[in-house]
Amino acid sequence: MALIVQKYGGTSVGSIERIKNVAQRVARFKAQGHQVVVVVSAMTGETNRLIGLAKEIQSHPDPREMDVLVSTGEQVTIALLSMALMEMGLKAKSYTGAQVRILTDAAHTKARILSIDEENLRRDLNAGHVVVVAGFQGVDEKGNITTLGRGGSDTTGVALAAALKADECQIYTDVDGVYTTDPRIVPEARKLKTITFEEMLEMASLGSKVLQIRAVEFAGKYKVKLRVLSSFEEEGEGTLITFEEDTMEQPIISGIAFNRDEAKVTVLGVPDRPGIAYAILGPVADANIDVDMIIQNVGADGTTTDFTFTVHRNDFTKAMDILKKVQTSIGAREVKGDDKTAKVSLVGVGMRSHSGIASNMFKTLAAEGINIQMISTSEIKISVVIDEKYLELAVRVLHKAFNLEQAA
Amino acid sequence: MALIVQKYGGTSVGSIERIKNVAQRVARFKAQGHQVVVVVSAMTGETNRLIGLAKEIQSHPDPREMDVLVSTGEQVTIALLSMALMEMGLKAKSYTGAQVRILTDAAHTKARILSIDEENLRRDLNAGHVVVVAGFQGVDEKGNITTLGRGGSDTTGVALAAALKADECQIYTDVDGVYTTDPRIVPEARKLKTITFEEMLEMASLGSKVLQIRAVEFAGKYKVKLRVLSSFEEEGEGTLITFEEDTMEQPIISGIAFNRDEAKVTVLGVPDRPGIAYAILGPVADANIDVDMIIQNVGADGTTTDFTFTVHRNDFTKAMDILKKVQTSIGAREVKGDDKTAKVSLVGVGMRSHSGIASNMFKTLAAEGINIQMISTSEIKISVVIDEKYLELAVRVLHKAFNLEQAA
Repeated sequence: MALIVQKYGGTSVGSIERIKNVAQRVARFKAQGHQVVVVVSAMTGETNRLIGLAKEIQSHPDPREMDVLVSTGEQVTIALLSMALMEMGLKAKSYTGAQVRILTDAAHTKARILSIDEENLRRDLNAGHVVVVAGFQGVDEKGNITTLGRGGSDTTGVALAAALKADECQIYTDVDGVYTTDPRIVPEARKLKTITFEEMLEMASLGSKVLQIRAVEFAGKYKVKLRVLSSFEEEGEGTLITFEEDTMEQPIISGIAFNRDEAKVTVLGVPDRPGIAYAILGPVADANIDVDMIIQNVGADGTTTDFTFTVHRNDFTKAMDILKKVQTSIGAREVKGDDKTAKVSLVGVGMRSHSGIASNMFKTLAAEGINIQMISTSEIKISVVIDEKYLELAVRVLHKAFNLEQAA
Repeated sequence: MALIVQKYGGTSVGSIERIKNVAQRVARFKAQGHQVVVVVSAMTGETNRLIGLAKEIQSHPDPREMDVLVSTGEQVTIALLSMALMEMGLKAKSYTGAQVRILTDAAHTKARILSIDEENLRRDLNAGHVVVVAGFQGVDEKGNITTLGRGGSDTTGVALAAALKADECQIYTDVDGVYTTDPRIVPEARKLKTITFEEMLEMASLGSKVLQIRAVEFAGKYKVKLRVLSSFEEEGEGTLITFEEDTMEQPIISGIAFNRDEAKVTVLGVPDRPGIAYAILGPVADANIDVDMIIQNVGADGTTTDFTFTVHRNDFTKAMDILKKVQTSIGAREVKGDDKTAKVSLVGVGMRSHSGIASNMFKTLAAEGINIQMISTSEIKISVVIDEKYLELAVRVLHKAFNLEQAA
């Protein structure tokens, strides 16, 4: 007998029919003798419908009331799923975040979990109940309803699994696992049986939107065994997120992530003196623009330098405007930008112990005549920024060059 | 400065536009220096939509989960109304039933309020907030979400007014007050400036569905000043529900209530012995059928009696089936029924001190050739059951006979 936490996203509970399907899947696990906690999101479209209502009233809805509003989405799902489980003859009981007491900080619409009171859940589980918990929501110390922000249901699942010391946390979604890259671009893309937490973090943050990054961090921190599976397939093992020490040998490269929404801003000929990076990025940060890659080169003349960073394409115009305003005060020669760029990243913990990965990557791209505009590396990834028109080509040739279609 | 509790029903908050209108009305009271607590229902149609989803899963949805589900309706409204108040520059804060701590018993879908913790509300009011509370819902001792049953938002409003010792509880609805009778039947029907609690109870239970009867009882018990107003009119005093001792002189008759859904079941020739009423009505009660009027006549021969009662028309067939099954065992000669009947009632506390009301009523009906099938009286009302085809005629002639179109 194991204790399993299962999390089902919005598309998995997007209709009454699908909620019944989830109930059937839960019933199968229960029939195998497992204890099951189910975490659910709002039905597809419901959160957006509620946000739409709020925006008809306030262009920037009050965060506290926004949380009161959108948290109803998951509350509807837990009630309906509990009913569906009962209709199948199972004992079931729903919990809102406040009822579990998922205590969070008071940062409405992006709260962080502080603690979970798992006592009542455990009593219900021991009494044979399936426990159905509303994802994405909690309550602060004063009893205000909070939400964890978009995708926060994954985090709820992992946090509950940690609190209950569950044997596994299963994240059901509309894909059947983590692939070496996007199969829509590379048909040979292969589903990974396992991936390490660190690789998953890089893959997730780079745009393989299978799991919410905070959930992966949380799982890594509390050593929760995490598995990604499809809620639309009967069978399949999905992809298990492992700790590096679990496995004997890692493949060198696990996958290729990419991001099409990258825009590049370059500040040319700025004086090479302390404080210049802050002078450039301070105003950008003040405007709430997230910066992704940052690169500073030694200048050719020894007194000036060139500074380049990337932002989300939606923020490109705003970032360019800001930089042009500060150009004179920071003494820059020129501010240039390009929003037709894309980022491609090789990810793999094996990189740590293998050399030649970067040069192989660059050689592969050069052979196709793809110019590399920026390079950034970490211990387990190499990212390049290229012209967006080469994105698909680059992903395909790299997938082939590193033999990712073959299991390691 | 007064403390006012205002309750707005589903149609009053049925759209974003109407929610904004409610916010404007609240703002006007706030501008007059009053403290305002607002109680709201779910937006029109929302509760039925949620019940519909539940019934797609369970034909008899689990009551606990049903409450989790439908309580989201009011939660959506409190958030949206709070936003609308803030958008107008007011300070506002929403509360679910659980957040106030409206403690109820554990009778899901028809819970009763046990106590209200008004401390937080009062603190918010003193800090200048408009407090927006979800009607219809509470929480039991174990933290389970409960609902008060249909129309329970009125009860929430009155209970909050009692707990906060509010100066007035205003019930906003789609009618602008309580009328002497339904203006759709009698165009001369007159809006009452005041009506006593007892009269209101009789009017409400007899089918003038302006206020939920539990709310009126509650207001009477805790001496809450209750006023019914239209949420669609700018001006108007509505109808104030008074305590009898408040007024010098009561009109003899305040209004005429009627009920079209009455069906009549008669058991003829049953032995006139102790226990016979229970032998007839016990099986009916066991089938969860509510019985309205009950009349037993002395039998002509001294050994048998005739027994008649009325039920809601929807329960007529079921009641007839039950009676026909027990007919032999109770020794009845015959069971007859008629579901083409209606009930008309004169209501007025002045009846207590005036004679001749009943005979005037009977004379008026006789003059129109309307046969009276059953008569039942209480201290402040006289009800008759008649053929439903005469209903409108009866109401019209009685309204005229008792001069109800003229203010007392």
